[in-house]
Amino acid sequence: MSALDALLASLPPLEPGSVVLAGAGPGDPRCLTLETLAALRQAEVIVHDALVDGRVLALADPAAERILAGKRGGKPSWQQGEITQTLIRSARAGRRVLRLKGGDPFVFGRGGEEIFGLAEAGIPFRVLPGVTAGLAALAQHNLPATMRGINHAVVLVTGHGAPGEPGPDWRALARLKQPLVLYMALHKLDEIARELVAGGLSPETPAAAIQSTTLPEERLAVASLAEIAGAAAAQGIEPPAVVVIGEIVAARQRLLALLEAEPARAED
Amino acid sequence: MSALDALLASLPPLEPGSVVLAGAGPGDPRCLTLETLAALRQAEVIVHDALVDGRVLALADPAAERILAGKRGGKPSWQQGEITQTLIRSARAGRRVLRLKGGDPFVFGRGGEEIFGLAEAGIPFRVLPGVTAGLAALAQHNLPATMRGINHAVVLVTGHGAPGEPGPDWRALARLKQPLVLYMALHKLDEIARELVAGGLSPETPAAAIQSTTLPEERLAVASLAEIAGAAAAQGIEPPAVVVIGEIVAARQRLLALLEAEPARAED
Repeated sequence: MSALDALLASLPPLEPGSVVLAGAGPGDPRCLTLETLAALRQAEVIVHDALVDGRVLALADPAAERILAGKRGGKPSWQQGEITQTLIRSARAGRRVLRLKGGDPFVFGRGGEEIFGLAEAGIPFRVLPGVTAGLAALAQHNLPATMRGINHAVVLVTGHGAPGEPGPDWRALARLKQPLVLYMALHKLDEIARELVAGGLSPETPAAAIQSTTLPEERLAVASLAEIAGAAAAQGIEPPAVVVIGEIVAARQRLLALLEAEPARAED
Repeated sequence: MSALDALLASLPPLEPGSVVLAGAGPGDPRCLTLETLAALRQAEVIVHDALVDGRVLALADPAAERILAGKRGGKPSWQQGEITQTLIRSARAGRRVLRLKGGDPFVFGRGGEEIFGLAEAGIPFRVLPGVTAGLAALAQHNLPATMRGINHAVVLVTGHGAPGEPGPDWRALARLKQPLVLYMALHKLDEIARELVAGGLSPETPAAAIQSTTLPEERLAVASLAEIAGAAAAQGIEPPAVVVIGEIVAARQRLLALLEAEPARAED
């Protein structure tokens, strides 16, 4: 048995009647964790978002039931309660249930609401982290989340508040003068950028919008904060996308300049 | 060939003379991503931090050279330049080099400095994300990073500024009223908590300190912001640790109360 097989065999099993809530990472199956892979292989029911790639689902048992709990051919998304009830019903039927979400289930993924529902119903569950799309997009584009001399913090923030709730306080975020990584912000990016500038961020602050990171349809736009909404639209960037705002984007641009100035390989 | 073998075989190879800078995740090898696993198996030289678990390194080729670039038996840590020079020297010797860091290489990992060094030397490199310890600790403890009605953002912040640099502006972070996930903050936690209270956070804000998440030596302390430093010390919590401050910690405590009130399994 290889070291990998031994490791996978040593992981806690997905028990019948229980739910594993796991993150599938940003998109490409190469970003799956080993424990999420092990859960995928054991699951009898997989309730997944539209963001979970088909190549990820292909790693599951072919006999597993796959349930798409997302947009379905123009029909509206499932309500959150409908998803939680599906998990509860499947677990109560004694099945091994995997709830698979894009990114990390706890980062803007409503995973918290799902485990509250499971806890109220008395269903045993475990939560497995995934690589969150915002940080994966940075690694993918040689864009350090933190750099000495540039920042002490990085803020993950959603552009998409719950209905009826006030959204993020963009002016307060601007005053922090630390890089922001925005999720689900593309549709309001113009308005958010104006609020950030009103809060004191320079309109020249470098920014990047990244669609579908790690997937074949990945796209990148780089522009100033004042121009990023227009640049993203001009390059056809569509959801799912993350937007990075701050001097760390300028660090990446300096790195690119170095890469262009130097030979692609050492030639000593 | 299994779907997993086919997937691993389809990943870009670790080319001789190049460096892959990868995150090993929070500790347990079950949190490794598939692409980092593939790089581990191909590497001829692995330059790793002390935080990379032995069980992770056990997945590498037994013939690979392992170089610990961290604290070595009481001797001081390597200087950053020494690490970068080791990577460059190994790559120039035509070897397949893996630089493996705990967590995510770009989140307080100084990965940015390393890729600048590689770019200046003309060494080809790729960056692979990992599950960052702060977010892994939340998943591990059923502690949602974000919850509708509680927060729109989560801030990852270091307690350990570079020498000679001013540290984070804790009062500005307090004014944001969004959860904070602190890295490398244990040694200054008392001082940081006082600054956060001075900035307007209630001393009653719930907080948690989590050591060595996912590893056997994992420990957790939960207390108010005013008392978290003392509670962490009383429970013997030592680095590496993350500290979470905000109402999301109270959400976890409510979940625990539910789990205690309900049967452990559905009994319908």
